[in-house]
Amino acid sequence: MAAASGRRTGRRPGPTRTRGAILDAARTAFAARGYDAVSVRSVARDAGVDPALVHRFFGSKERLFVAAMKLPVAPSALVAAVLAGGAEGVGERLVRTLLTLWDRPESFAPFLALVRGAVDSEAAATMLREFLTREVLGRIAAVAAPNRPEFRASLAGSQLVGLAMARYIVRIAALADADREELVAAVGPTIQRYLTGKV
Amino acid sequence: MAAASGRRTGRRPGPTRTRGAILDAARTAFAARGYDAVSVRSVARDAGVDPALVHRFFGSKERLFVAAMKLPVAPSALVAAVLAGGAEGVGERLVRTLLTLWDRPESFAPFLALVRGAVDSEAAATMLREFLTREVLGRIAAVAAPNRPEFRASLAGSQLVGLAMARYIVRIAALADADREELVAAVGPTIQRYLTGKV
Repeated sequence: MAAASGRRTGRRPGPTRTRGAILDAARTAFAARGYDAVSVRSVARDAGVDPALVHRFFGSKERLFVAAMKLPVAPSALVAAVLAGGAEGVGERLVRTLLTLWDRPESFAPFLALVRGAVDSEAAATMLREFLTREVLGRIAAVAAPNRPEFRASLAGSQLVGLAMARYIVRIAALADADREELVAAVGPTIQRYLTGKV
Repeated sequence: MAAASGRRTGRRPGPTRTRGAILDAARTAFAARGYDAVSVRSVARDAGVDPALVHRFFGSKERLFVAAMKLPVAPSALVAAVLAGGAEGVGERLVRTLLTLWDRPESFAPFLALVRGAVDSEAAATMLREFLTREVLGRIAAVAAPNRPEFRASLAGSQLVGLAMARYIVRIAALADADREELVAAVGPTIQRYLTGKV
């Protein structure tokens, strides 16, 4: 952000406003066209800046999406950290990592916004589906057993999203009031079976 | 509906309009005050009819809620049918019964409306939480193992809601395109463990 940007276009007063224009263009594009059809290049064009500048600010389409949606962490980084420990115990680690993140309301808020969009509009559901499929489930599938890895990763995702719905949105008392480690112990084996057991 | 109603009040022209007035009053009351604080008596008062008439039309607060929210079936009836087979295999039967219901878009629509409300507003989330806790999870808990039955039923609920989100709302391909029985085989054991296994 502190880099000397705007040189190439000269149309904007500084990097902060340029960054804001890129994020505005990205939000509009993702909302209208989903995740897959949008590229760093098309967002740069929409924002009237050089694609190299978008790359310099955000590094990748995923990071651009993460910044545009104000996610507290890039899913690829989070998943990579969880998967680094290997397949054994990955179910518990995944549940623990997500609950640790989501237990902070300000970190759950952007996730809630994505879910809210998806239940409110087809376009937002498409955007979320494409983002999850490409950037999250595909990475989780890499650690899953070789038969039907996408099905396995999607089952795991369904349990994790349902847990978030029940604990943070509908706030079912038995789950909202549970200690994080109780949920890790209860739900971890489900994720583990989906990823590496018999499904 | 065809019963000679309206006799007691004499203020309304016929049973259909009376029934509609009761449902309107029920929707307003549930949305504003949640499920627990509303009674058949209070809805009758709001609608300007005798409570006995509401009982005659709907039979119970649950049935009144089911009619007001246009649910295709009363959860108590659905859960009773599933639980009639006993604890063995209850996980698979619960998944099969719900997917059979939800695979029809017109039967999923009122469920989607409840979820949409819950992610959009605190009041609707409270209404859904109170309804699920009192009329659905409590009944499922009756078949669960004696240690922590509400926790068990809530875990099962979280997986079922997450499956609905992933298959019907976000439409993750691997789950949206899966055969019902594939999902019964994959998710049934999760529900079974939550209800009767080690959690």
